[in-house]
Amino acid sequence: MSKVKISNMECPIPLDDYKYVMMAHGSGGRMMGRLIDEMFLAVFTDVQPQDSAILNVPQGKIAMTTDSFVVRPLFFPGGDIGSLAVNGTVNDLAMCGARPQYLSVSFILEEGLAMETLWRVIQSMHKAADVANVTIVTGDTKVVERGHGDGLYINTTGIGVLEHGHNITPEQVKAGDMVILSGDIGRHGIAVMAEREGLSLRCNIESDCAPLFAPVQALLDAGLVPHALRDATRGGVATVLNEIATAAGLQINVSESTIHVEEGVRGVCEILGFDPLHIANEGCFIAFVAAEDHVLALDILRKHNKKASLIGTVSEGKPGRVTIETSIGGVRILDMPAGELLPRIC
Amino acid sequence: MSKVKISNMECPIPLDDYKYVMMAHGSGGRMMGRLIDEMFLAVFTDVQPQDSAILNVPQGKIAMTTDSFVVRPLFFPGGDIGSLAVNGTVNDLAMCGARPQYLSVSFILEEGLAMETLWRVIQSMHKAADVANVTIVTGDTKVVERGHGDGLYINTTGIGVLEHGHNITPEQVKAGDMVILSGDIGRHGIAVMAEREGLSLRCNIESDCAPLFAPVQALLDAGLVPHALRDATRGGVATVLNEIATAAGLQINVSESTIHVEEGVRGVCEILGFDPLHIANEGCFIAFVAAEDHVLALDILRKHNKKASLIGTVSEGKPGRVTIETSIGGVRILDMPAGELLPRIC
Repeated sequence: MSKVKISNMECPIPLDDYKYVMMAHGSGGRMMGRLIDEMFLAVFTDVQPQDSAILNVPQGKIAMTTDSFVVRPLFFPGGDIGSLAVNGTVNDLAMCGARPQYLSVSFILEEGLAMETLWRVIQSMHKAADVANVTIVTGDTKVVERGHGDGLYINTTGIGVLEHGHNITPEQVKAGDMVILSGDIGRHGIAVMAEREGLSLRCNIESDCAPLFAPVQALLDAGLVPHALRDATRGGVATVLNEIATAAGLQINVSESTIHVEEGVRGVCEILGFDPLHIANEGCFIAFVAAEDHVLALDILRKHNKKASLIGTVSEGKPGRVTIETSIGGVRILDMPAGELLPRIC
Repeated sequence: MSKVKISNMECPIPLDDYKYVMMAHGSGGRMMGRLIDEMFLAVFTDVQPQDSAILNVPQGKIAMTTDSFVVRPLFFPGGDIGSLAVNGTVNDLAMCGARPQYLSVSFILEEGLAMETLWRVIQSMHKAADVANVTIVTGDTKVVERGHGDGLYINTTGIGVLEHGHNITPEQVKAGDMVILSGDIGRHGIAVMAEREGLSLRCNIESDCAPLFAPVQALLDAGLVPHALRDATRGGVATVLNEIATAAGLQINVSESTIHVEEGVRGVCEILGFDPLHIANEGCFIAFVAAEDHVLALDILRKHNKKASLIGTVSEGKPGRVTIETSIGGVRILDMPAGELLPRIC
């Protein structure tokens, strides 16, 4: 029985036995038991074998968040569905100021998926969880017939611990707040889209997929409490700004020239008629901070990402409105995308 | 704009507008916002609008479990994918003795799914959560292209609170323990299969889909600590017994005549060559209790389900072996199903 070497660890189910996922791998019998024991538990060593994981939590408040990932293709420059599934959920916890701690992982596998592909994804998740300092504690596997999935879908649900008493939500945003963007934008959506459509981009755009709790913790450690934090995923920066302006009942005004967009991303957007502010990111966020805190906040965030920048301010204005001062000096309404832009980027 | 009446509450997105789920309902823009606000949040009123829910937990231990549901068809006698998704996760928590408290819900919708179908499922989840006394606190929605899903898949992840210090796991099972089955078996798997294959069964077999914390709590309230509990879902009673015999390193001996199987279920199994012990259930469980506790335990469980019965005992014997005394008096090995039996029953 030959074993194919994958990445730095051998695939533990001999690929000559089961090169592809079969329906029986999801039916609760011996084949499923073997898939779980020899593949999942070999990598996710902190998963507790019974149906529920028993976890220690401090008294007080925890944060819970869930996300299913259906990104297509499964692998793209800068990441894959596995690293995305870990970082996406970790970041949703981080955005309310919670320390990401535990993750559950649930797979919906399509019959015929190459075991080797599953193995690569599992290893990627393990690595991402390690970097983000979260523990994968429980899981589930289902198999659907060929033609009823797209290789694999992953759900991750996360639990984080709130180690402070602050309420970091859009409703806390106040007129006079400063708006800071933690990095450059548009890379994730364009990287996935380019890989999917087979565009050969000379500029090698990579997804920004990364965990974001470290910069949030740095802000909190400095005694600085952001009023709101939000990662700019589906719908991009424009959507986040609109949602927060609506929730806070305030107006947000940003300046286009302060928003970093990589040359390559800008080029692709210009050719295809996309607005980079509508493109999804997976490794940058927007922080709303009190005016007196913004210099320190920017200073801290720049230690984590040199491209962090002050992009705007909050005013009474018209509740729910977002305006943008364009690079040529005009001011326009910045709306969220109305319909379909780039589907399945997460 | 006419509104179609569904169940007891009108579908809040006028069906003339969007009769079917479109890709844009998953893209993070205005259409997705409307789907979430007007459908999901209209029913799941305890969902917190930000990406993570903030939850109160007592100091100590919590249980976490996750399950994705891909049952086909979406509606079947006795339940649907929505009630199943709630009860399946609630029961995984109950089986470690944790009080089910919070649920996350994540949908993977297939483009073209009828909004009316989604609305029925959402309402069913709401009702099931109400009966099981759990709160749906956070959610997520993704949309995949037509031909890459099967209507809808649902992930639920649950958090339960351990209000006692007992360790209820297969490793606690001891030689001499009694094995109690909480109800009759085989109805869920056969009901789903019959609906899917269009078998017209005169006997109207209904899924046993139901929440199981109440009987577990009754045992604990009586001061009775089961050594292990396990709901007999995928792979049926046979799989649970084999897994526990292996985990405990003991032999389990059961008697076929003590296991309740409805006439209709038995008939379908005989015709199709299935063993009812391999068929999935969604509303019954197996309890391993100390010999001195079994009379009281059975008494309590019968108050919840008259068909609860003592089905066997645990012995040193051969570790991992399960034997069954057949109704005609012989004894055979009871194995778990090797491969595919009835796929997609949960």
